[in-house]
Amino acid sequence: MEDRKIPYKIYLEEDEMPKAWYNLRADMRVKPAPLIHPGTKQPMTAQELEVVFCTELVKQELDDTTPFIEIPQEIRDFYKMYRPSPLVRAYCLEEKLQTPARIYYKFEGNNTSGSHKLNSAIAQAFYAKKQGLTGLATETGAGQWGTALSMACSYFGLDCLVYMVKVSYEQKPFRREVMRTYGATVTPSPSAETAVGRKILAEHPDTTGSLGCAISEAVETAVSKEGYRYVLGSVLNQVLLHQSIIGLETKAALDKYGIKPDIIIGCSGGGSNLGGLIAPFMGMKIKGESDCRIIAVEPASCPSFTRGKYAYDFCDTGMITPLAKMYTLGSGYIPAPNHAGGLRYHGMSTTLSQLYHDGYMEAVALGQTSVFKAAEAFARVEGILPAPESSHAIKVAIDEAMKCKETGEEKNIVFGLSGTGYFDMKAYESYHDGKMTDYCPTDEEIAAGLAGLPEV
Amino acid sequence: MEDRKIPYKIYLEEDEMPKAWYNLRADMRVKPAPLIHPGTKQPMTAQELEVVFCTELVKQELDDTTPFIEIPQEIRDFYKMYRPSPLVRAYCLEEKLQTPARIYYKFEGNNTSGSHKLNSAIAQAFYAKKQGLTGLATETGAGQWGTALSMACSYFGLDCLVYMVKVSYEQKPFRREVMRTYGATVTPSPSAETAVGRKILAEHPDTTGSLGCAISEAVETAVSKEGYRYVLGSVLNQVLLHQSIIGLETKAALDKYGIKPDIIIGCSGGGSNLGGLIAPFMGMKIKGESDCRIIAVEPASCPSFTRGKYAYDFCDTGMITPLAKMYTLGSGYIPAPNHAGGLRYHGMSTTLSQLYHDGYMEAVALGQTSVFKAAEAFARVEGILPAPESSHAIKVAIDEAMKCKETGEEKNIVFGLSGTGYFDMKAYESYHDGKMTDYCPTDEEIAAGLAGLPEV
Repeated sequence: MEDRKIPYKIYLEEDEMPKAWYNLRADMRVKPAPLIHPGTKQPMTAQELEVVFCTELVKQELDDTTPFIEIPQEIRDFYKMYRPSPLVRAYCLEEKLQTPARIYYKFEGNNTSGSHKLNSAIAQAFYAKKQGLTGLATETGAGQWGTALSMACSYFGLDCLVYMVKVSYEQKPFRREVMRTYGATVTPSPSAETAVGRKILAEHPDTTGSLGCAISEAVETAVSKEGYRYVLGSVLNQVLLHQSIIGLETKAALDKYGIKPDIIIGCSGGGSNLGGLIAPFMGMKIKGESDCRIIAVEPASCPSFTRGKYAYDFCDTGMITPLAKMYTLGSGYIPAPNHAGGLRYHGMSTTLSQLYHDGYMEAVALGQTSVFKAAEAFARVEGILPAPESSHAIKVAIDEAMKCKETGEEKNIVFGLSGTGYFDMKAYESYHDGKMTDYCPTDEEIAAGLAGLPEV
Repeated sequence: MEDRKIPYKIYLEEDEMPKAWYNLRADMRVKPAPLIHPGTKQPMTAQELEVVFCTELVKQELDDTTPFIEIPQEIRDFYKMYRPSPLVRAYCLEEKLQTPARIYYKFEGNNTSGSHKLNSAIAQAFYAKKQGLTGLATETGAGQWGTALSMACSYFGLDCLVYMVKVSYEQKPFRREVMRTYGATVTPSPSAETAVGRKILAEHPDTTGSLGCAISEAVETAVSKEGYRYVLGSVLNQVLLHQSIIGLETKAALDKYGIKPDIIIGCSGGGSNLGGLIAPFMGMKIKGESDCRIIAVEPASCPSFTRGKYAYDFCDTGMITPLAKMYTLGSGYIPAPNHAGGLRYHGMSTTLSQLYHDGYMEAVALGQTSVFKAAEAFARVEGILPAPESSHAIKVAIDEAMKCKETGEEKNIVFGLSGTGYFDMKAYESYHDGKMTDYCPTDEEIAAGLAGLPEV
């Protein structure tokens, strides 16, 4: 057993915590393409966006030149309740795999939302409160984002309306209760409460819902209610900005021990976890200061990077949002109902899409049974029950560590353990009972989704 | 707002973590009464106990003279995966209450078992493995102990059989899946798999089970299977010994900032959390080095300290265990089914019973709706969703802080936040829906339970 000089968990001191978020776009050579108006096909203006989003968040959304944006003291105080999150050295996993690789993971699950989502939720709620709003509307897939926003709204005394993707609502009844504990109103989506929900229900009465569809309902609600705005837990630039706290803390913790990562791995649905984790490392890579590999991992059932098209598309199923240039499967694409947990989004962050397009990162897609197998193996040695989403990254980290075993390379592998799986036990149950199946869309299904892309 | 010089979370460094457990009994003036054999009425010998328990654990159980017992390196390595746990300064709760009191809580919920139970589970599994055993049998009430033991057994490659109190098994189906993830076999208790289970089912076919009953089944299974022993997650001296890590870390963290606690509060079921939290402080109190108040909080529906009798009683419902001198409601006492979560045990740690009897601590009993009200208020400001068990301590901490508000006293209040409530959402749901009821046994019901006490 190697001498364990590096602690099992590296915690930063409170005064070592980042005081500013890192805006990766400021350092990108090719900036992400702007959101455009679906009618005029012109870039969305701040004024247009402010109908939907909080004013300060619109500013952050459009700012691609300021590299560091100060974190307001109120948000830093809230962060201190559950951050810094630990950077864990996976000694036990390394020993189990008998790999010469050193595996580290940034663990974002030690808060009641169960994931990294709280990092952006508290920021968005803060700016809403500062603007004098009374409430926020949003959607949630696996439930982490809705829980995070409920917590943040409760903290700042805002109302919180959550549209929850129907399949998750049914698979995770207890998630709803957590949100209720924090005073939120939770509605399964598609619902009969919005025009777009009624339309989708009429066309697809048996639909299990999708994030894109829940987004449509939340946006419609937000713009039609006085004193409300819409907030989103992923995809947007502002969210990646807030989530940069993950990567900044990770880098600070690694720097403390002089560790340089060779491979960084994150799961990707809309990109909030991946974009946050890799931000400072990607910045270095762009500037030629690092040659680390960056790997996005997505589910085979919703493979936007690996099988989608880099094109302008709606961010939602109801086609009421602006168009974003991104890797997309088409806004009408709905993952198979057997797909567990989050990572169900048809599109991808425009920032990450541009970086992937420019060759700064790799992407792989995995079947879910292989992911749950890795999750269980990880849980048994590292003691943490991972979220299905995060387990995509675990699987690739294990694969890379096994390659190191073959080559004898002592690589530093860093992955994002974005959340815990305590509310995903139904999916684990189906895995334990041998009832979990993999689903990989056919070429025809992918083509059908892409056929619906808007003309720009 | 007071200048926040003390961090929100005090983490010890790895090299500041305790290297030995503290055996409070060594410093007690009146030692806890010994376990006695129900047939001979003589103190149980090591030889007799080793039929049921691991040899090294029997040694720890009977040792009331060695003040510090070294924590084996293998256990310390495992502890490093999820310890040190943070000592949190509840700044947000203080602000919400507008109290001059300073509130601290030791948070033991940041591990997959969801509670402090893992501290003893890993120790017990380690000694079982060292002895060359193949498996362990146990019972679980709310599910935390069963999960903790599953994790520990998985880590050391031992089989794990868990009898889960039926009401919890039904209220918490996902707990079972977590245990299965760690490879455990989970059986609802009472079951038809043991003689004692069949007997209880025949007498009480509609019973929702009790810890005492599940203990009987686990003990029967352990003694009848080759290579198995029985392990218990609370009540026993050995468990309080292992759990002293909670109090030792708490004291080290407080000492770092020169803080002396005025009041220490812990919930009590069998005593594992309370006994662990208070150990070093109680030691100081016994030696006259501290005059802090120590408060045990129990549910009104299972009030062993406040309404039980200090007497020899069986540790289980089936009356197959040794007799322990403790505050007890009688081994036949089964809490009302409307009672949520753990803290359902009819008896109490012999160590804590002796200390309570000798006037070293106070005890209060609470109705569960007041507890859930406190839990929700806490969750909304401190961001952690607490276990119902731990919320008993929260309620009393809030009450004491409010008394300080009246008197203007700046007391240091420390309580144990022993676990999270992620698997208790059914109880939270009943609270949200206004369907939760309080239950307080009548004097006749208490008398009926006590009427069954054995003669010694």
